[in-house]
Amino acid sequence: MSFDFTLIAQDGDARLGRFETPHGLIETPVFAPVGTQATVKAMRPRDLVELGATLVLANTYHLYLRPGDKRVRDLGGLHRFMAWDGPILTDSGGFQVFSLSDTRRIDADGVTFKSHIDGSIHRFTPEKSIAVQENLGADIIMMFDECPPPNEYEYVRQSLARTHPWALRCLDAKTRADQALFGIVQGGVFRDLREQSARFMVELDLPGYAVGGLAVGETKAEMHAVLEWLNPVLPAGKPRYLMGVGAPEDLVNGVLRGIDIFDCVLPTRIARNGAAFVRGGRINLRNARYTDDPSPVDPTCDCYACSRFSRAYIRHLVKADEILASILLTTHNLHFLLRLMDDLRKAIRKGRVAEFAGEFFEAEAVD
Amino acid sequence: MSFDFTLIAQDGDARLGRFETPHGLIETPVFAPVGTQATVKAMRPRDLVELGATLVLANTYHLYLRPGDKRVRDLGGLHRFMAWDGPILTDSGGFQVFSLSDTRRIDADGVTFKSHIDGSIHRFTPEKSIAVQENLGADIIMMFDECPPPNEYEYVRQSLARTHPWALRCLDAKTRADQALFGIVQGGVFRDLREQSARFMVELDLPGYAVGGLAVGETKAEMHAVLEWLNPVLPAGKPRYLMGVGAPEDLVNGVLRGIDIFDCVLPTRIARNGAAFVRGGRINLRNARYTDDPSPVDPTCDCYACSRFSRAYIRHLVKADEILASILLTTHNLHFLLRLMDDLRKAIRKGRVAEFAGEFFEAEAVD
Repeated sequence: MSFDFTLIAQDGDARLGRFETPHGLIETPVFAPVGTQATVKAMRPRDLVELGATLVLANTYHLYLRPGDKRVRDLGGLHRFMAWDGPILTDSGGFQVFSLSDTRRIDADGVTFKSHIDGSIHRFTPEKSIAVQENLGADIIMMFDECPPPNEYEYVRQSLARTHPWALRCLDAKTRADQALFGIVQGGVFRDLREQSARFMVELDLPGYAVGGLAVGETKAEMHAVLEWLNPVLPAGKPRYLMGVGAPEDLVNGVLRGIDIFDCVLPTRIARNGAAFVRGGRINLRNARYTDDPSPVDPTCDCYACSRFSRAYIRHLVKADEILASILLTTHNLHFLLRLMDDLRKAIRKGRVAEFAGEFFEAEAVD
Repeated sequence: MSFDFTLIAQDGDARLGRFETPHGLIETPVFAPVGTQATVKAMRPRDLVELGATLVLANTYHLYLRPGDKRVRDLGGLHRFMAWDGPILTDSGGFQVFSLSDTRRIDADGVTFKSHIDGSIHRFTPEKSIAVQENLGADIIMMFDECPPPNEYEYVRQSLARTHPWALRCLDAKTRADQALFGIVQGGVFRDLREQSARFMVELDLPGYAVGGLAVGETKAEMHAVLEWLNPVLPAGKPRYLMGVGAPEDLVNGVLRGIDIFDCVLPTRIARNGAAFVRGGRINLRNARYTDDPSPVDPTCDCYACSRFSRAYIRHLVKADEILASILLTTHNLHFLLRLMDDLRKAIRKGRVAEFAGEFFEAEAVD
């Protein structure tokens, strides 16, 4: 099973590529909507297809706990279970174990944690994470790692010493040829640790490399620096995935620094809080100023929500706690990011990504 | 503006008809999904079109309180506000005032009530109900009436004495020619009162007649008897609307007794509780027996939910409180009722509605 990554064009550090997976081709740079519990919240698979989504993420930690990875396997795997025929990526469960579980204990072998659903005790090891991800059956699976506090040098150094052996154990545990196992580069905001982690992963000759441990409290300048340090270390011929990043400005900044794949709950989560991306920032439909506003959420947008409904109507739905508010705002926010990625791909192809980014940030500054 | 009702075929007391409205033709018998707050919960207008819905109900009481009927008018009216281009029916607000408001006081002139949203005090009179419904701008509007306890003769008799003068006031208050004002026959489970009310309404020569005050606690036998008494009293050339009724068996029984229009929150409400109509009854996806069930909700159904997803997956969505559970089960339940109405129309056309009903009730009995 091939996971060929073809670079079609480069424009500065920005890359236009194609990644082959068993469930279809992914044009990169790409943004992956997140379907934590095997559903992108408020979206049907056919809506995602219509919006142009090509890659969807699902969370190993959540699906392991409910409905259970063996159940998903016995029901035909994640693609069939959630009726999404395109490529899927699962995370390793590591990040969720560290951030969602109220008690967890890390040792050299793995992590013991408490379910956020019923408080039951569970244990993830590198082998267990791979076994769960093989049961789920995504096209791209991730190494089990720890996501350390980014600014604590000594902690990050020790965490790398724990995580790198886990990478080898993940590789050993892997049995399915139809899944690509991506490595994860950690190292916080420290150049020596990031480069050390990247060199270790590159040595393993993996089908793709993720940058983990960002968007967790460091500054934007630190995030950008990390991406710039990694650029010359990571091989040009493999896809690069910036985990958990999805603000529009971060997508542009990431693409400018060589990132090919992004995922984030941001567009779907803020939608359920009444917020919408617009050129130059965000608006929140809870705001009383939209009560009588007959204009669409984003007058420049051609999504279903913006072509049929007013801000006044969507505000009414938000205030009245109607499901349609979440449906329409999720539709718009995903469309906004997927169109942004499409615009970025077109700009790279034309060799004008810097110009595109300049215009984008000018609009941002207006707000 | 014409509101012509054409009888295409009759089969026993069952009727196949066409009702013309300013926003399109309605083939009857028809089931109208309910969009209480100007949205059929969990559905987009385009989903309703795809499901074959031709008439949607909205609630005057709710929209008067939020976002306000004048605001809806200023935003272009209800059709534009909710982006539903087809026919809309609004109720008078009477039923909701009586059932939702925790304190209400009826007098000969109208009803004073407390908002369920913020406790503020409001007053509906026949004139106010018509003014609100004219601001909303539905194709079919309803007379302001009281829905009395169906089995209390003396109360029902006095209620009729109050409600009939209100009908005249509604007619006087009406100004828009592009709205059809339907009368409502009350009278509880009492033949003399029902016939008296029906004769009073027929005397007014209205474009349609509703049967109110049923499905509120009386027995099925009593409901059927009321419909049979009214059949010879109501004119054949006008549509007949049985308010608030939507269980599959009640639709079949209503059609057999000459009803042309139905509405009910049942299919959408039970969907949000995890329940689905199936041939022969209902199933609830919360039930543990569906945990590993790879079959669709209803194996005989060709809706989007049944053609793509398993009971196991939908049960997972229900347990995980995912919006997609409501979307898929609402889709199925509305499809189920709309297909049932389509089947009934076809059966009437072929003169085999009794046969169809026989098969339907045989399946019901199996469950």
